[in-house]
Amino acid sequence: MSKYMHGRRLDLKNGRVEMAHGAGGDAMDRLIREIFRPAFSNEYLNRENDQAIFNVAAGRMVMTTDSFIVSPLFFPGGDIGALAINGTVNDVALAGARPTFISASFILEEGLALVDLKRIVDSMSAAARDAGVLVVAGDTKVVERGKADGVFITTTGLGVVDHDFNLSADMAQPGDLIILSGSLGDHGMAILSTRESLSFESEIISDQACLHELIALMIAGGGDAIRIMRDPTRGGLASALNEIAQQSKVGMRISETALAVKPAVAAACEILGFDPLYVANEGKLVAICAPGAAETVLAAMRAHPLGHDAAVIGEVIRDDQCLVQLVTAFGGSRIIDRLSGEQLPRIC
Amino acid sequence: MSKYMHGRRLDLKNGRVEMAHGAGGDAMDRLIREIFRPAFSNEYLNRENDQAIFNVAAGRMVMTTDSFIVSPLFFPGGDIGALAINGTVNDVALAGARPTFISASFILEEGLALVDLKRIVDSMSAAARDAGVLVVAGDTKVVERGKADGVFITTTGLGVVDHDFNLSADMAQPGDLIILSGSLGDHGMAILSTRESLSFESEIISDQACLHELIALMIAGGGDAIRIMRDPTRGGLASALNEIAQQSKVGMRISETALAVKPAVAAACEILGFDPLYVANEGKLVAICAPGAAETVLAAMRAHPLGHDAAVIGEVIRDDQCLVQLVTAFGGSRIIDRLSGEQLPRIC
Repeated sequence: MSKYMHGRRLDLKNGRVEMAHGAGGDAMDRLIREIFRPAFSNEYLNRENDQAIFNVAAGRMVMTTDSFIVSPLFFPGGDIGALAINGTVNDVALAGARPTFISASFILEEGLALVDLKRIVDSMSAAARDAGVLVVAGDTKVVERGKADGVFITTTGLGVVDHDFNLSADMAQPGDLIILSGSLGDHGMAILSTRESLSFESEIISDQACLHELIALMIAGGGDAIRIMRDPTRGGLASALNEIAQQSKVGMRISETALAVKPAVAAACEILGFDPLYVANEGKLVAICAPGAAETVLAAMRAHPLGHDAAVIGEVIRDDQCLVQLVTAFGGSRIIDRLSGEQLPRIC
Repeated sequence: MSKYMHGRRLDLKNGRVEMAHGAGGDAMDRLIREIFRPAFSNEYLNRENDQAIFNVAAGRMVMTTDSFIVSPLFFPGGDIGALAINGTVNDVALAGARPTFISASFILEEGLALVDLKRIVDSMSAAARDAGVLVVAGDTKVVERGKADGVFITTTGLGVVDHDFNLSADMAQPGDLIILSGSLGDHGMAILSTRESLSFESEIISDQACLHELIALMIAGGGDAIRIMRDPTRGGLASALNEIAQQSKVGMRISETALAVKPAVAAACEILGFDPLYVANEGKLVAICAPGAAETVLAAMRAHPLGHDAAVIGEVIRDDQCLVQLVTAFGGSRIIDRLSGEQLPRIC
């Protein structure tokens, strides 16, 4: 038994993360037992090994990873914990897979309030439950004050592909239609307005959400007529479409009037000088779809709350230069480049 | 095409990480194409989707994750890149699995020299090649100067279990023997002496290494007579043995004279006041083994360079208090607690 700390419980009200919480001894054990274990309890994690071990059926699996460094840690509509689960669940689902297991690794800054850590971990737990995934492996490291920024979370997701077709960013074909699931810019502007303590007439709420149910409906309805699905996160819709255009070696033409931007988001973008086409979303998806199936896919999307405002926003065209063009409300047309520099740092 | 930066190449000699390298646009694309893609090139990553998709056979798989925050980034015997691959490959292999796929997520501090990033990524690439694993998914984020410390890397590993027995920390039984693969404390003291710019008569080299071949030989030789394998990293051998003792509800008795500590490491520990039992190792393993198979397992280990100095260091005993006892060179005995507070921060 340790002479000093054995049996002392965490002070979840006033305590803070200390370097000892990352040292591999008693203090780390308490952090795991009092914060992480209760939140993520499942048969794999509870075996207390350094690894999760599980059975898989023969077939195709998907693996994806993301680090989350959003600042601030809490924002209207979510927090870094929910984002870390939903972002990775979405990336698994967008490959057409059913998300199953998640690993979560935490880099904590010395001095982080334990009450904040617990709130974040509990938010992850709720998001994982909603998404039907289990957090089966984890790690915790602590760095000195000033060597990180509160908490960084890296999640890795696994999923199982239950069908036999491919979704891949190189599969768009001229004539395909481009479907967007809802309004643009909510997440990025929610983060920015919180960070800058800006107040607009109505608060801007992040759209961060788990898209796996919406995606399952789309696949059930559209099948292999859906060629590609992407979430327009960092770099916004403009970057997502440019990436697809380049990988598929096609052009795109989208219609400004088909794009939805909420009034408060539009106002914030105008005041602050941002183009909503480049602002991050965390609960939206763009799908490239064979033209004959677009109505079926749209109907499937609109049956789900997260796809209620889904619309065809444009089409894939032949273009050796792989340009994305925006047809403006006045009938003109301009090229939508990829983001060349930095727009909004640390939005996810 | 971007008006400003399209086609400009990274300055790999004098350039530094900028916030734009994490923004999801052209700059991030260049970072990926010029540093990450060439290092990790493989059929999965090269498809340029947000996910890797691969075939699996029916059976058992293993998933494990770790964040690496070691300071300094480069140290005698390795760097954060090699450590991030080998640490995760080891955790997969220690569950008795054959490591297959790795994901790697980078949190970069603005201002990090690109030449350092490239050196780290190339070191990861070499370590992955040596370990026979593919880095199939990745992510890059950038935080402002002073909000991280150079680079943090989170790796997640997958592996396939090719046999039908279980290795789990709750399986030690009284009478089992405890085998250690080599000397203690090399990694922790290599990091500390670099960090503190201490110079000892002979330089201390980290033992960081990939253990998967050694482990495969052990499993081929010992089969299910091997109950548990662990790597004594954070918290050292003392913490690893205490964890196993508590999970298996047994005691342990180890012999001080059976433990190897290199003279330079022993000298550094003595001068700096560290107990090598608590100092981290990154290329060693401890195995709990049925007594009848210990000689076979030891012979298998000694046939591999990383197991050349393997030895039985003690035995598992009945003990309701789950204590780990050290029998000293003088025949006395003392209790080896878990680490109660902080010993050596940021060694992995």
